[in-house]
Amino acid sequence: MDKRLRGIFAALTTPFAEGRISVEKFRENIEKFNRTGLAGYVVMGSTGEAPFVDDEESEILVREARRAAGNDRVIIAGTARDSAEWTVKVTNRLARAGAQYALIKPPSYYKSRMNYEALKVYYSEVADRAEIPVILYNIPQNTQIWLPLELVVDLSKHVNIIGLKESGGSLAYLGEVVSRVSPDFHYFTGSGSILYSALDMGACGAILALANVAPELCVRLYELFTAGKKDEARELQYRLIPLNRALTETYGIAAVKYALDRRGYYGGPCRPPLLSLEAGARAEIENYLRGLDLIN
Amino acid sequence: MDKRLRGIFAALTTPFAEGRISVEKFRENIEKFNRTGLAGYVVMGSTGEAPFVDDEESEILVREARRAAGNDRVIIAGTARDSAEWTVKVTNRLARAGAQYALIKPPSYYKSRMNYEALKVYYSEVADRAEIPVILYNIPQNTQIWLPLELVVDLSKHVNIIGLKESGGSLAYLGEVVSRVSPDFHYFTGSGSILYSALDMGACGAILALANVAPELCVRLYELFTAGKKDEARELQYRLIPLNRALTETYGIAAVKYALDRRGYYGGPCRPPLLSLEAGARAEIENYLRGLDLIN
Amino acid sequence: MDKRLRGIFAALTTPFAEGRISVEKFRENIEKFNRTGLAGYVVMGSTGEAPFVDDEESEILVREARRAAGNDRVIIAGTARDSAEWTVKVTNRLARAGAQYALIKPPSYYKSRMNYEALKVYYSEVADRAEIPVILYNIPQNTQIWLPLELVVDLSKHVNIIGLKESGGSLAYLGEVVSRVSPDFHYFTGSGSILYSALDMGACGAILALANVAPELCVRLYELFTAGKKDEARELQYRLIPLNRALTETYGIAAVKYALDRRGYYGGPCRPPLLSLEAGARAEIENYLRGLDLIN
Amino acid sequence: MDKRLRGIFAALTTPFAEGRISVEKFRENIEKFNRTGLAGYVVMGSTGEAPFVDDEESEILVREARRAAGNDRVIIAGTARDSAEWTVKVTNRLARAGAQYALIKPPSYYKSRMNYEALKVYYSEVADRAEIPVILYNIPQNTQIWLPLELVVDLSKHVNIIGLKESGGSLAYLGEVVSRVSPDFHYFTGSGSILYSALDMGACGAILALANVAPELCVRLYELFTAGKKDEARELQYRLIPLNRALTETYGIAAVKYALDRRGYYGGPCRPPLLSLEAGARAEIENYLRGLDLIN
Repeated sequence: MDKRLRGIFAALTTPFAEGRISVEKFRENIEKFNRTGLAGYVVMGSTGEAPFVDDEESEILVREARRAAGNDRVIIAGTARDSAEWTVKVTNRLARAGAQYALIKPPSYYKSRMNYEALKVYYSEVADRAEIPVILYNIPQNTQIWLPLELVVDLSKHVNIIGLKESGGSLAYLGEVVSRVSPDFHYFTGSGSILYSALDMGACGAILALANVAPELCVRLYELFTAGKKDEARELQYRLIPLNRALTETYGIAAVKYALDRRGYYGGPCRPPLLSLEAGARAEIENYLRGLDLIN
Repeated sequence: MDKRLRGIFAALTTPFAEGRISVEKFRENIEKFNRTGLAGYVVMGSTGEAPFVDDEESEILVREARRAAGNDRVIIAGTARDSAEWTVKVTNRLARAGAQYALIKPPSYYKSRMNYEALKVYYSEVADRAEIPVILYNIPQNTQIWLPLELVVDLSKHVNIIGLKESGGSLAYLGEVVSRVSPDFHYFTGSGSILYSALDMGACGAILALANVAPELCVRLYELFTAGKKDEARELQYRLIPLNRALTETYGIAAVKYALDRRGYYGGPCRPPLLSLEAGARAEIENYLRGLDLIN
Repeated sequence: MDKRLRGIFAALTTPFAEGRISVEKFRENIEKFNRTGLAGYVVMGSTGEAPFVDDEESEILVREARRAAGNDRVIIAGTARDSAEWTVKVTNRLARAGAQYALIKPPSYYKSRMNYEALKVYYSEVADRAEIPVILYNIPQNTQIWLPLELVVDLSKHVNIIGLKESGGSLAYLGEVVSRVSPDFHYFTGSGSILYSALDMGACGAILALANVAPELCVRLYELFTAGKKDEARELQYRLIPLNRALTETYGIAAVKYALDRRGYYGGPCRPPLLSLEAGARAEIENYLRGLDLIN
Repeated sequence: MDKRLRGIFAALTTPFAEGRISVEKFRENIEKFNRTGLAGYVVMGSTGEAPFVDDEESEILVREARRAAGNDRVIIAGTARDSAEWTVKVTNRLARAGAQYALIKPPSYYKSRMNYEALKVYYSEVADRAEIPVILYNIPQNTQIWLPLELVVDLSKHVNIIGLKESGGSLAYLGEVVSRVSPDFHYFTGSGSILYSALDMGACGAILALANVAPELCVRLYELFTAGKKDEARELQYRLIPLNRALTETYGIAAVKYALDRRGYYGGPCRPPLLSLEAGARAEIENYLRGLDLIN
């Protein structure tokens, strides 16, 4: 187990200004996040509007993140495209730009063909040819594919596949995976609402949209947990769930960006077709932030 | 909180012989289960092939369960039909036959119409007219409906709605419900794979298909947990997940019945269209049972 | 091919008054429909709120329909329950009450188990034991099951399975089924929006919710088609689609009942949890009815 | 209505050799197709493994297609990415490479956010900024999004949106769209199994995977139809359905490529993760080809 992969990672948003990526705002956000105790950052994850950003823009952002994060914090990049060929090309391009790990969701356009064998072929070829280690990524909300448990166990033996981010939110899956894979395999939960229980069942950390908006609280929960203060960790967990649900399930990235704006980071607009948050939703997000003392 | 509703409940299978319900086998099973520490039984749940059993047969089975369970164990009956009218009729018929609580899944045939308001109207009318308390039942695998969290919070205020069985397996949902409803509201997990984490996050108990096949182990996990032996409870949880997944997700009721047969209870055949377990699946179930010392 | 099964059938609504089935209103509706050229009626179909009506009520309604329909019009009853056992029981009870054919949708509660073999076992057992001929029923909107094409071809050889109602609206499926089964097999479309094309591709008729609200127009389209006036039939089809979409897709049974009320039949309320139509929807339905000269 | 957009278009496959796009094989295929009566070609459609091919490769293929197709045949390019920004960039790059129309499927990664308004914003911005006319593309099998009918009617008024390809196979949708939009709007069916009925209900043509494998027969069906020989067209339709179902539903692109190989075109392998066709499937495809006299 790589110690640097323990703890809380923020799945960063991508700042846009007038339709273009804003490298400056991106750097400023990261510099502020560096003071919150996060273990690292995911660039070009689902929260980063990855499917909206082309290969060249992705490279620029990864390069900037690597520079801004400093030596102590890890950079993981979302590098998946739908074919093994294109994914390898992007993975290695972003590796050279500074990404230390590649987070790779399954191809999903031809989902009726994505059986066990097809997914195995895809991940095996990508891992064989990738110049950095691969982290599998289960995010059925967006892909309509649930990585079969047996496939994860199987792929965990590949020397260049070192972990899994699981955003489906299943503790049952977590429990079975961690009890069957090597202790060196890194299991990250992708759900801020089950962070406490996931750590308790054996996750090494978390990659969270919530960690943009409430990095201090996510880090505190993690530290309470590792210090054995489970009752306090659990209480904090209860308090985080409603905000996390609003950010990830009810409203999505526009809400994460709005909350960043309110907290003194740069959120800004999403790229179309993602729409801005409406007034009622803004008020709801503010209420949650206020209830957690994240804004005045 | 009703103390009798704490602990582990088995969602009983319904024994058939030559196509008919076998009251005798049903009674014998319950008499054996009475010695395992279970808190009670669900008759006509999803594991009980409820949609296969008509109203008259349901009544016979509830009456027998009430008689066989003894005074110390609670009888909960699945009583849902698709209309409030028919559900009330069945609920009160089964109440008079001895059911103490009614477990009620949402109507799902006209699922495109089952919005918040429709579900609220349904449950409110049923709870108003039911002669016994109602337990809500979330089982999206079978109904394709996820009871909205706000609806559960809302309905929890109805004087005759006293709890929820949640079989979708979401710890996030559990965490938010238990932190928002009255402490008197009973939250049962319906997933044997997350029993430990659900108790840890505030569930009062569980209603499980797994508790047919491994009642002693489910009860032991519960007792370890309530005795504060969380590490041991968690270890037992890891060991139970693969069997539970096979029983509930991979193979279903036919596997539960096969395991019952192997353990000295009566399992027997399902009613068509549920098919018998094939040889490979039988061997897999046996392996799991053997690994848990449930058979020799 | 049974000549009496050619043409347009109405999938009747079930009239309720003060929560109870109203046999009188049911009879009056049928007596009016008898003057519109319909070939017969389906009692206890999806439009009839079948899952809301218990076995005894179903029997009363079938008996009344048989009596009111007269000798020239066929009575088909929806008789499906989730097990073969219960379905056979209901089918034969309704057969004795006067149903001439049984329309049977697939069991859907345990949908993850409803593979080819399970569905074949179910339909074969039901057809073997049913005292009246069986019509298969594909309605994936409500069951989430699409009857495999090969299964329909296979089951079409059973001596007591004489047809299929297909409500998924697929012309591709229709084309392949009719070109592979015996010419004696009856293919009914269940979609009023593709009536013309379905007839053109080989359907023998249709079973429609739309035929409650616009029986004259459905019959006229059928007659234009059989008289070889295809251009006129197609023009009428275009005009019927928006109303049919509103009735079946956008608003459902409450809209069918509201339209019946406006046309001088008895619609009345649905049973909860189906809600009444809101004002905006009522106005929309009225617009469509007026545009087709069905109301003033 | 643009006359050049009437008739049958092939949704071309993309030839790969040793993992790379093969421009030579692509050109040779097109030169052969030029002799079959097709009205034009779609490059980078769903059949073309579009999500597997990067922006630069796409440009090369469009340029080659434009050159090889000759002046009489139209080149349509699939140009969609998930953001309006990236889609515009690709659309205009491919326009300059020779694409005359852009076929644009809806963004689908954040599908829970893709409501009416988001889709309208997306298509409006893309159409405003695209240098060539846009054809909407409904393909719910792959995107899990069905373009709302009202949205299509609404967008049809945009001066730079000139048509729709509909691959969901709904005749009801076709009937309502064509009766509500301007007669200048081009409606292409994307389903080879309903080609005859779609033409009969008002489609101007079709964009088909089937037109790779059986271009002569698709063209013949179209010509029989336009010559008023509807009975012959319908008979041919029945014969094409089983092959089309195998190619598009049962087996997918690998089957299209295998059939091309058997017919003397270049099919070749798919890019991983799409797997090659297994022996049983190959035999089935060959049977269908032989039954239609497409191979000996």
